[in-house]
Formats: sequence, structure tokens, C-alpha cells
Amino acid sequence: MPREITAYSNPLIKRVRNLRDKRHRREEGLFLAEGLRILTEARETGRLPEMLFFARQSARHPLVQALVEAVEAAGGDAIETTPDILAKLSGKDNPQAVVGVFAEFARTLDAIDRRCAPLWLVAEKLRDPGNLGTILRTGDAVGAGGLILIDDCVDPFSVETVRASMGALFTIPIVRARWEEFVPWLRAGPGQLVGLSLDTDRDYRGVRYIAPTFLLTGNEAQGLPDAYEAECDLLVKLPMLGKADSLNAAVATAVMAYEVLAQHRG
Amino acid sequence: MPREITAYSNPLIKRVRNLRDKRHRREEGLFLAEGLRILTEARETGRLPEMLFFARQSARHPLVQALVEAVEAAGGDAIETTPDILAKLSGKDNPQAVVGVFAEFARTLDAIDRRCAPLWLVAEKLRDPGNLGTILRTGDAVGAGGLILIDDCVDPFSVETVRASMGALFTIPIVRARWEEFVPWLRAGPGQLVGLSLDTDRDYRGVRYIAPTFLLTGNEAQGLPDAYEAECDLLVKLPMLGKADSLNAAVATAVMAYEVLAQHRG
Repeated sequence: MPREITAYSNPLIKRVRNLRDKRHRREEGLFLAEGLRILTEARETGRLPEMLFFARQSARHPLVQALVEAVEAAGGDAIETTPDILAKLSGKDNPQAVVGVFAEFARTLDAIDRRCAPLWLVAEKLRDPGNLGTILRTGDAVGAGGLILIDDCVDPFSVETVRASMGALFTIPIVRARWEEFVPWLRAGPGQLVGLSLDTDRDYRGVRYIAPTFLLTGNEAQGLPDAYEAECDLLVKLPMLGKADSLNAAVATAVMAYEVLAQHRG
Repeated sequence: MPREITAYSNPLIKRVRNLRDKRHRREEGLFLAEGLRILTEARETGRLPEMLFFARQSARHPLVQALVEAVEAAGGDAIETTPDILAKLSGKDNPQAVVGVFAEFARTLDAIDRRCAPLWLVAEKLRDPGNLGTILRTGDAVGAGGLILIDDCVDPFSVETVRASMGALFTIPIVRARWEEFVPWLRAGPGQLVGLSLDTDRDYRGVRYIAPTFLLTGNEAQGLPDAYEAECDLLVKLPMLGKADSLNAAVATAVMAYEVLAQHRG
């Protein structure tokens, strides 16, 4: 049976609300995900929240009921609460019907098998949570083996990233690694490291991509450091015909990823 | 000579700050753009702010000086102010060095010549300012003739859209039209209307795109209405191999736009 919390002063509410803050996420190893669509996506991939908050008003929704049952069957905590408290947890005036508290699950390089997919996405010092979430969605769509986050990227478990990922956070493996770990791991097996760059004349369509391709995107403002570009097997660029001189990092990653996908399929 | 405003109570400050609000933008026909990079991009394309606010600390920066001179030569108002007031204008603790107030400049369909470009972007009921800004950047990069906003899209002159466009707002024509105006205009000249859809089996790579191609993207959550899809000469889809069932709208637009560009370039 779900229990009920209706007092905003309940210490659990404060603790969960604090997960909007990176330091608390790190200390607890937990993060927040909101919304029936994202939590259902998570459930379908076998990820259940340790705590599930839902409003009484939505308790009869079949997808909410399915979530409550699954969480309780797995030994988790299903908590009925008020719209006000949900709004406080989600930081939105118009809160989603459900908020889940999940255990973080990023992996290390030695936990992945590069042979399971022909394409891997790699992002270096990505700073914008919306871009990271969007890249996770793209990774899911192109069937990437995973997203490898290099050096100090924005937290993949921030509320903003989870929201922008529309559930893809749960469907595609996320790996965190320093560049100094990534390069030896990469070179210990098959694979081509392809960097997106403005410092090359090689058009992205004029290249054959082998499998596995590791597609490396740099920081939104600076692009890739010179030393990282030097490590790439191949640098490619997208044509830019306009007056502005850049593309959004998530967009550039997606255009590249779809080209690699088309070649691998065709 | 620039004049100086250091009192937050100055009525002009309140008036400019109000431009963060859509209703005031509409009433005044003015909008805000922030940051030296974006304002310099605007200047290079011949768009100057009617009012330019800058902090004394940055007055010696050559690009700020160039902006001040250009604004004053054009009869505009250059105003030196405090970091605090800049922060209030921009809504950010860490304000950009400059804030400009520009006249809105969206066009109507009869003001554009479809023959000037082989690719046009068309977006219907787009709701996210970040997506709109990102699509403007993509439009600039692929050399699109312009972005045609159909029905009730998010305001292209909102602070968030301008920021996300990274200056592309100034480099690519923006047109606003109702669907009932757009279709007769489209059919009165050459061009192929290509809709992005989940309701087709036709892969986007298996199609020849003629010029001009009008690439139509629907609302982030709902996609295109059935009647709009029925009007398209062609519906195409992007492969989606994952478990989540959608791509970000700006990403899908960009992948399509780069495919059309690659075909047009030969």
C-alpha cells in the first residue's frame, strides 16, 4: 500500500527536493525524473525508482497504477502526496503527475562491450543540459551503443538533462571517463575515432566510416582541444554556408550520427 | 556621445526590461538581444539596435566601440550604464557586456523570393524557444532562404530564442504566416513541400529532393496535423532504431536539411 505524505515539513520532502542540487545528488547517488512518459519509459527498460511520488488525483491512471505496483513489487516506496508538494519537488508550477527518485547508474569503460554496436557517441566537456539530453535522444534513435562523457561534462542526472532526454537517459548506456582513460581503452580494441572539427577541409559525406565508429563532439563554445583532435583517426566537418559560424553541438552530432548510420546500413 | 544612466528608477530601464515580456514586445515592436557576439553578428548583417546599453567597464573593448559608433552614426541611442542595471535588463546575474534593443523585423510571404534559395525551412506550432533558435542556426548553416513560422509558434524575438540562435536570428529571414495563407502562396509557384512524419515508411535518404524544397517540421509533441500531412507532396521519416520513440524537433529538421543540402550540392 502506498503511504501518504501531505506535510511539506516532512524531512523526506526536503531530502528529495535537494536532489535538484548536484552536490546532494553526488552524496546520495540518487536523481530525480519527472513525468509519466519518462517514468514509463524507464519501467519498460527495467529501471524502477526507489521512491515514487504521485498525486491522489492521478492515482487511478492505469500507467500510474502500473508504476506503483512495479515499485512496490520491487521493494520501493510509493508515496501519495499533494499537487503542492509535487510542484515543490519538480520546481514547476504545473507539476507532472509523478516524480521518481532513481539510483544513478553511469558506467565505467570496462563495463561496456564496444562490439555490441557499430556507433558510439563521445562528448567532451559538454556544458548544456539540453544538449546532453538531446544527444541521448539521438543516441537512442540511431541505435548507438552508448554515450561516453569525457572530462567535466554537465551532469547527466540533472533535472534539466533528464527532462530533455525524454526518457532516453534510461534507454542508452552512459559512461563517464577522463580522456587519459578513454584513449588507452579505445586503442586496446577495434574502432575509428572521428572528431567533428572546424579545422579540416574533409567533408563528412566524403568519408567511409568503419564499425565501430566513435564519434567525438567537443565543447559547445571551444570545440575540441588541439591535442584531442590530434588523437582522432579522422577529422571531418559539416558544410556551413551561412554568415554565423557554428552549429548547435547536439545538431552537429545528430547530422554526423545519421550519416554514419546510413553508411553502416547501406 | 553616449549618455549615461545609473539610476535603476529611470523609466527607460523599466521600459526596456519589460521587453522580456511578449505583450510589451508586441506593443512596442521591439525586442532584446544580448552579448557582444550576437550584436556584432547583427551589425555585420546591417542590423543595428535602436538602443545600445553597455557597461563602463567594457567601453574600451574595440567591438563595443565599433557598436557604439555604428549605433550613433545611425541616429540610435548608446547608453552607458552599470553592471547591476545590465543584469536587470538581461535577467542574468552575470550579464553580457552589451544589451541591444532592436526593431522587430519578421516578414510576410509576399516579401520573399523563393527562387533565391533551393531550401526553405518551415515550422508549424513550434513551442520551445531553444528549438526555434537552434533551427535558425541550422538554417543559416545550410544556406536556407529563410524560416517560415506557421500558425502559433513561440515568439522568435523572445530573449531565449535570440540567445539560442547565437546571432542567426539576424542572418536568416523569418516569415510568419497562417497555414491558410501559406498553402496558396506555395502552390502559386515552384517547389516541393516535404513533411517530416512518423506516419510513412518512406526513408528520407531514398528520395530525390527538387529545388526549392520546403521542409516542414511539426510541433514537438504532436507532430504535424493530418490535414497538413495530406497537403505535403512527400512525407519522409528518419530511421529510429531505439526504444524511445522520438527525436528532438530541431535535430530532425537539421538531419533532413543536411540531406537536402547534400543532394542539391550534388
